Amino acid sequence: MKDALQEIGYRGETPCDYHENGLECHFELHIEQGPILEKESKSVSVVTSVQSMKWFSIRVGGIEGHSGTTPMPARADALVTASRLITAVRDCALNTELGVAIVGVISSDTSSQATIPAGVKFIIDVRCSTDDMVEQHAAHIFTAFDSTIASENNGTSYHIERSWGLPEFIFHPHCIEAVRASAFSQIGEDQVMEMKSRAGHDSAWTSRVCPTGMIFVPSKDGISHKPHEYTSPEHCALGAQVLLDAVLHYDTKVKTAGFEVSV
Amino acid sequence: MKDALQEIGYRGETPCDYHENGLECHFELHIEQGPILEKESKSVSVVTSVQSMKWFSIRVGGIEGHSGTTPMPARADALVTASRLITAVRDCALNTELGVAIVGVISSDTSSQATIPAGVKFIIDVRCSTDDMVEQHAAHIFTAFDSTIASENNGTSYHIERSWGLPEFIFHPHCIEAVRASAFSQIGEDQVMEMKSRAGHDSAWTSRVCPTGMIFVPSKDGISHKPHEYTSPEHCALGAQVLLDAVLHYDTKVKTAGFEVSV
Repeated sequence: MKDALQEIGYRGETPCDYHENGLECHFELHIEQGPILEKESKSVSVVTSVQSMKWFSIRVGGIEGHSGTTPMPARADALVTASRLITAVRDCALNTELGVAIVGVISSDTSSQATIPAGVKFIIDVRCSTDDMVEQHAAHIFTAFDSTIASENNGTSYHIERSWGLPEFIFHPHCIEAVRASAFSQIGEDQVMEMKSRAGHDSAWTSRVCPTGMIFVPSKDGISHKPHEYTSPEHCALGAQVLLDAVLHYDTKVKTAGFEVSV
Repeated sequence: MKDALQEIGYRGETPCDYHENGLECHFELHIEQGPILEKESKSVSVVTSVQSMKWFSIRVGGIEGHSGTTPMPARADALVTASRLITAVRDCALNTELGVAIVGVISSDTSSQATIPAGVKFIIDVRCSTDDMVEQHAAHIFTAFDSTIASENNGTSYHIERSWGLPEFIFHPHCIEAVRASAFSQIGEDQVMEMKSRAGHDSAWTSRVCPTGMIFVPSKDGISHKPHEYTSPEHCALGAQVLLDAVLHYDTKVKTAGFEVSV
């Protein structure tokens, strides 16, 4: 990264480190990326935390074979087993109601249509309000996996190659209070709701090192990261105003009331 | 291809065309690539035909969404639907017993673990003894697909992007007879069995333009296209002898009895 920045003449003088840049607090305005504000006819959300997330990279193993010559009952087809596991992920999320879970990324060992795949990899994304709920949710998923493998009983298996995650981040109470006070004064209490962020954000990272708060404004149909993502000009302006006032509010309070700024 | 061969000095003088090369007949020795000869304790197979094959390139469409913010019941997840369709392919093959069917190749529109995929592509490989059976088998599969889509009822859909195939190829009766006579004289009737090829072969193509026949020898555990593919030296030698004698037998018969050589 350093070499690349240097090469294009973009390497600045300031070290890329929050100690060097002196982050005292962090406020972030974002579109909700979900449908809740729109559905509830609210204009601003005071974001209290970012939900817990965990990812699991799974490899399903089977036995490679020829699509034409291997008798159907003798097949250890990694993609059929992976398919059953992927539907189990969805069924678990719907049945337990602990949070959300999905598989978006998948790859098969073979690029030949005539090969029974020896292996399939996929990544599970699990998100719940709290770290405990993520652990419970994942445990349900892997119990379902174990019983799927047992009922398939055809020589296929799975293992978790890697897991990683982000714990729940609860924003700083003084920042939450500053956003709430700012939103109430701008738009009135009935237009404001508290919310947990269901997506990850820069603020989840800054909250590890300095007091942090977030503001959401509505997303049309909850759509994000797509060309038809839309937030009205009025909601954008309102969000920016709430952001400014939250910073001013926080600044005044820190100076006048001696807010505790360690995290 | 022509340019590439020229560049590396491998472009020969003889045109690449069976008319120019004067193929009069074609005999091929191959390992079975399946478990049947070994299971039946036979040493040679007189191959009578190559089974019918058809491929279908399928695209499942859904609606892209954020893995964290889109409520579970509102998801049109293309990979969950694709998974249900892939298991339906296997279930159809097992239940109808019309032949074999598999999905080996799959790709998701997204490489982000946090995205509900808008689309998934996969290829179905269907093989049955006859063209009619392939059509029946495919019809069962797509009926199952339609009912899966209807029961999911979540905005996902599928369509066949492309289909292509190879019809059943029945080898020439004189070539089959030449292989049979050669095998019987080499090893005795009780060590020989007739068989339809479950895999595609060069002979499926030559049989379109000249009389063609094939010989199989056993494959250990039916394994092929893998490092532990194995046929014993004795079976290799036997196969080569049957091949030579089949050619000589055919040649003698054509010269003495006036075999019909058009196909």
